[in-house]
Amino acid sequence: MSVHPTTLKTYASRISQHPNPTAKRVLEIMERKKSNLCVSVDVTTADEVLEVIRRVGASVCMVKTHCDIISDFTLEFANELVRLSKELDFVIFEDRKFADIGNTVTLQYSSGTHQISSWSDLTNAHPLPGPGIISGLSSVGKPLGRALLLLAEMSSAGNLATGEYTKQAMKMARDAGREFVVGFIAMGRVDVAEQEDWLIMTPGVGLAAKGDSLGQQYRTPREVVYESGCDVIIVGRGIYGIKGGEEAVKKEAERYREEGWKAYEERLARN
Amino acid sequence: MSVHPTTLKTYASRISQHPNPTAKRVLEIMERKKSNLCVSVDVTTADEVLEVIRRVGASVCMVKTHCDIISDFTLEFANELVRLSKELDFVIFEDRKFADIGNTVTLQYSSGTHQISSWSDLTNAHPLPGPGIISGLSSVGKPLGRALLLLAEMSSAGNLATGEYTKQAMKMARDAGREFVVGFIAMGRVDVAEQEDWLIMTPGVGLAAKGDSLGQQYRTPREVVYESGCDVIIVGRGIYGIKGGEEAVKKEAERYREEGWKAYEERLARN
Repeated sequence: MSVHPTTLKTYASRISQHPNPTAKRVLEIMERKKSNLCVSVDVTTADEVLEVIRRVGASVCMVKTHCDIISDFTLEFANELVRLSKELDFVIFEDRKFADIGNTVTLQYSSGTHQISSWSDLTNAHPLPGPGIISGLSSVGKPLGRALLLLAEMSSAGNLATGEYTKQAMKMARDAGREFVVGFIAMGRVDVAEQEDWLIMTPGVGLAAKGDSLGQQYRTPREVVYESGCDVIIVGRGIYGIKGGEEAVKKEAERYREEGWKAYEERLARN
Repeated sequence: MSVHPTTLKTYASRISQHPNPTAKRVLEIMERKKSNLCVSVDVTTADEVLEVIRRVGASVCMVKTHCDIISDFTLEFANELVRLSKELDFVIFEDRKFADIGNTVTLQYSSGTHQISSWSDLTNAHPLPGPGIISGLSSVGKPLGRALLLLAEMSSAGNLATGEYTKQAMKMARDAGREFVVGFIAMGRVDVAEQEDWLIMTPGVGLAAKGDSLGQQYRTPREVVYESGCDVIIVGRGIYGIKGGEEAVKKEAERYREEGWKAYEERLARN
């Protein structure tokens, strides 16, 4: 299999390929912190979220949230999240997986209890409802300099984001242009055409576990970054769920950061 | 084209076909109120939601919400919604379109600001992430007597829920059984095999408009209920968005109820 040219470039050299300010910032942080690690913080109170972020913040380029599982979410909490993202130098990625028609996602992104567009640098959407979902989200997010990932593939067992579906996701991104859509959630380099440079972010990464009881499946950082050519590894329970308190979590985040970066350097070494 | 046997049965006679208590209740209300109308309430404050419901409540079998677009959502508001659903005799359908892996949707359904499972009789999910999404939601909703619809098709232009995707959605529902999954969001009778009786609910219904600028497409109640054999019509802005205040909205809801019911009686008359 031929090597995708984008995987032979440094993150730094790719900054100029991206017109979107959030995409640029992601690549800048990755280079600066030598980190392609995103920690997914799936805990259910604001204090727990902030605690995990303080522990892992130094090691990550990105923090992934599910604001709708936080029982005491407030906009003050969101402000604190934004403050921490500046202090600790990471991008906030609300993993909302928008999946409705354009008119509805416009409201879901901008309004409600969560007002996601006001604090989240990056969010994602399923291409399933058609191009109207991108237009709707873009009408809110693009003027704010936000960015969108499309889910081209998923990590869970028996998912339907495969084959023709994935191709259609790619096409929808190309048709939308690169001003707001900056990349994909995918398990590998879905942007096979030579000249393309999309950010590929990959969930389901773990060094130990092979899966959970509800269909999640795990691969190692090396499999994801070196073998599959993805840009950002997303790790959740594998880091914040480890036993041993603050020091253990910090150490585990560092271990994943190192593993991810090593796999990236290994892929550059093929030059 | 042969007529689907389920479309020749009365809603009342179908009650015994459904093991799920919420599905039974939907069919009972439909028969009692002579209504196959669901109003989708896509407004952004709690007061507006309650106002729309008080206006349309007498005419509907179901109210569809997007709790995450309501800026001042509280659990007290949700309690009032539940109280109104009993007083005015309708089922609450939170149109959440869950679309994540099993572990995440379990939390999104039960936790967070919205605690959807505590007040919503019915919700829906995309089959996209694979069967783990049903297992996850079922672990929360089934013990509470809640029900789930899978999105087998969508109403928006260029959507990818077609062909093999729709078939896989059907298969996933069959594999899950009928204790928690009670039907589909679809544009027609996707349950083609003869013995099946699923509830088919259909968005994108309007008597006047043909679409919006973000890809939504509309069909009439007769096209949806008589021609396509669907069970519940979902109407949004076409009813609550009409000019003329309370009386105009009430009247428009009645007009849709009558159109939907007439189409249902017309389909029964083919017996």
